[in-house]
Amino acid sequence: MPLPPALVALLSTLPADIATDEPSELREYGTDRTRIFEPRPTLLVRPRTSAEVSRVLAGCHAANIPVVPSGGRTGLAGGAVAKNGEVVLSLERMRALGAVDTLGMTLEVEAGATTEAVHQHAEACGLYWPIDFASKGSATVGGNIATNAGGVRVIRYGLTRSWVLGLRVVLADGTTLALNGALEKNNTGIDLRQLFIGSEGILGVITSATLKLTRAPSRLNPTVLLAIPTFGSALRLFEEVRASRFETMAFEYFSDQCMRRVERYRGSNPPFSPRPAHYVLIELEGGTADGELDEWLGGLLSRSLVSDGIIASDSTQRRRLWALREDISEALTATGVLHKNDIALPIARLEAFCGELETLLANGYPSFELCVFGHIGDGNLHINIMKPEVLSVEAFRTKASEVDGALFALVQAHHGSISAEHGIGLLKRPYLHFSRSDDELALMRGLKAVLDPKGILNPEKVLPWGTNETRLAL
Amino acid sequence: MPLPPALVALLSTLPADIATDEPSELREYGTDRTRIFEPRPTLLVRPRTSAEVSRVLAGCHAANIPVVPSGGRTGLAGGAVAKNGEVVLSLERMRALGAVDTLGMTLEVEAGATTEAVHQHAEACGLYWPIDFASKGSATVGGNIATNAGGVRVIRYGLTRSWVLGLRVVLADGTTLALNGALEKNNTGIDLRQLFIGSEGILGVITSATLKLTRAPSRLNPTVLLAIPTFGSALRLFEEVRASRFETMAFEYFSDQCMRRVERYRGSNPPFSPRPAHYVLIELEGGTADGELDEWLGGLLSRSLVSDGIIASDSTQRRRLWALREDISEALTATGVLHKNDIALPIARLEAFCGELETLLANGYPSFELCVFGHIGDGNLHINIMKPEVLSVEAFRTKASEVDGALFALVQAHHGSISAEHGIGLLKRPYLHFSRSDDELALMRGLKAVLDPKGILNPEKVLPWGTNETRLAL
Repeated sequence: MPLPPALVALLSTLPADIATDEPSELREYGTDRTRIFEPRPTLLVRPRTSAEVSRVLAGCHAANIPVVPSGGRTGLAGGAVAKNGEVVLSLERMRALGAVDTLGMTLEVEAGATTEAVHQHAEACGLYWPIDFASKGSATVGGNIATNAGGVRVIRYGLTRSWVLGLRVVLADGTTLALNGALEKNNTGIDLRQLFIGSEGILGVITSATLKLTRAPSRLNPTVLLAIPTFGSALRLFEEVRASRFETMAFEYFSDQCMRRVERYRGSNPPFSPRPAHYVLIELEGGTADGELDEWLGGLLSRSLVSDGIIASDSTQRRRLWALREDISEALTATGVLHKNDIALPIARLEAFCGELETLLANGYPSFELCVFGHIGDGNLHINIMKPEVLSVEAFRTKASEVDGALFALVQAHHGSISAEHGIGLLKRPYLHFSRSDDELALMRGLKAVLDPKGILNPEKVLPWGTNETRLAL
Repeated sequence: MPLPPALVALLSTLPADIATDEPSELREYGTDRTRIFEPRPTLLVRPRTSAEVSRVLAGCHAANIPVVPSGGRTGLAGGAVAKNGEVVLSLERMRALGAVDTLGMTLEVEAGATTEAVHQHAEACGLYWPIDFASKGSATVGGNIATNAGGVRVIRYGLTRSWVLGLRVVLADGTTLALNGALEKNNTGIDLRQLFIGSEGILGVITSATLKLTRAPSRLNPTVLLAIPTFGSALRLFEEVRASRFETMAFEYFSDQCMRRVERYRGSNPPFSPRPAHYVLIELEGGTADGELDEWLGGLLSRSLVSDGIIASDSTQRRRLWALREDISEALTATGVLHKNDIALPIARLEAFCGELETLLANGYPSFELCVFGHIGDGNLHINIMKPEVLSVEAFRTKASEVDGALFALVQAHHGSISAEHGIGLLKRPYLHFSRSDDELALMRGLKAVLDPKGILNPEKVLPWGTNETRLAL
């Protein structure tokens, strides 16, 4: 496809190697981990500075060219997919890490730095940026912020939003905002940072951030895997650990269906005999006095809240217990065809919701295997449905999307969210109304119109088309 | 002043006792703690439900009548002042407290509930809403959220923004949004809650909130008052405590000028002899092993980072140490005429800033006494200038406002905020450009225009008038 003249004119003003239309690069940079949409961008642009990002955006804005901001492309909702001839604006050449400010515990980084690079950089000073999840080696800080990333440490540290002090953002027309710097407190009118955090690239492009750091946690935190008789007892257990004197660093749930898949994937033996129906992995903060943890667990056993348990006694065992939880995603993908959802509910609704979901599947889709795991301390469940052998992939997709409708209605009935962590992107856009009211959608469109009046930024993402919106095309 | 006909028509559709124009009530509800602006509202309206708030706003919107939302009126920036014939919309009749959800650790409350009422309600279940400051007996949850309140626990728990799950907000035209419910995680497009938190009532009226709670902290946390030779050593001390194994619950600074005022106000004796130039009050979390704290303090003494210290050995002594810090505001007001500012800086800039501020005053205003205290762990300083005996109050106000210009320029040079906690309101509006760029101000005006196109909500607050804005009048 020949480049539109406006784009050629823009490129002539920028460094020669900033852009490429090499087909394999366009395919790679035009997609994320969804692998559902066919990538079809026109151009890949990789600026080296925020000023270059501004010039690219100003040029695209003037010429009505749609732009898809691109980080580590580890997303699961199609938020970074370019399928309609867009320019992909990759931040990957902007990955500088500033000096760690050990007094203020802050760190300025460019948006293309990976989450893991930030961890390593901070760790060298005994500090920690507590956004932590499996894809941290590829995911970038800009992407973390644009999706308000969660992960396995939310229960202790909160979401990405809590760990961002300053943002440099380039708006659709090339205007650059430097928001809040390194300030913890700044009550000077509307906090514009908050608009961009979690907005999935539809309001502006984050080019750098000043991150808030905290002390690095111990690598030797007490960690236990518990066998649980019912889903409800996992919630009782959650209540107990929060009432105890221990501080919770992680509280992860998974069902025995997940564990069986992990065992099949690895060829490993079950951790408990007899098999329980449910598991909880708990990491506690800091030291516990000798015997204190044993005594607490003994109390849980004697009340049948827990049927068995393994306490990690060294860092190898600790890693082994964590691997059971962390391997679930990979094991599900490797052992079958699955359909994923990432939902959240008020914690008090989890038990009722899970019961109704099981009934829904048992009645309408008895051959579907349900594999549930998640951060239940945050009300967040990853709901996975596995394709039965007898169904074709196509027939499974059709039925799974039927289940989605029923699942989201159930989520709505329990005042939940259809996307806890993964975002809306392209994938969940048709379902957004299950979690947001018409008035909210109208207001979001109004905000989008102020920040990106021509709709060039990540078009077709997040917001369903409103009556006043026009679709851009090259 | 007779009520405008549109207002009379509106009132005829509402419960008879909802509104009053009794002059003493108008005076009381038309002002906050600034006491600088003459209150002159037309009417006080006190709805009992969110639906009534919606009807009041829809009516005022239709008739172009400006509205000032009103909470506990403990603000220090004039954010709740009604001085141009506005309708004051008080939330004080909406103070219901829902049942505490001990599993999810959440609590739904109406906006007019006081911060203290929320504390007591949560405490009965062993839980805590960690927004805590001196005026909590009068300040309301709605006001806390609308100003993103800080206080003495920010270093441990963060600002109000981190402790709000759901919001019910009525927009200028009466539209009601129910945002996020009781969800910790909800990545479904733009997080509209964040717009209203800290917006000082210019974008919508918060009528209820679902609060996130945490475990109640111990009342017996180790607390120490330390005598410090220089301001810089207070910052070194801050670095040391964060590098220690203790968890910081509070880290408060005050100068000896503040301490002398407290002593004069109370007629009490100095805590240390000889007097130090600076003080730090530290509260640490949880238990420390026997002798651990003594040992740590001994190390600080031996390195001359600290010249003396008092460890609270029981809850009475703990309260006594805290009272030294908490009485400062009252002592300054009672012992002189003062001019206040509440600023924030990146922590790494605090030392240089304080040095330059002292030079500025010594050179230009040698007779002004400077009393500085604040939450230096958050980069937040309360800068107070005391009127010299020889100056009239009027001459002092004029000179103090000269100092403001120079002070804010210094804040700007160090990338700080001209309002850390108190907000902008009416008082700081002329100075907003010291902390926010023209592009930011333009964007804020754009957002205001989407949410409140007629500009009826808290007019003249926060945002300097833009070229496209028109001033409303009854």
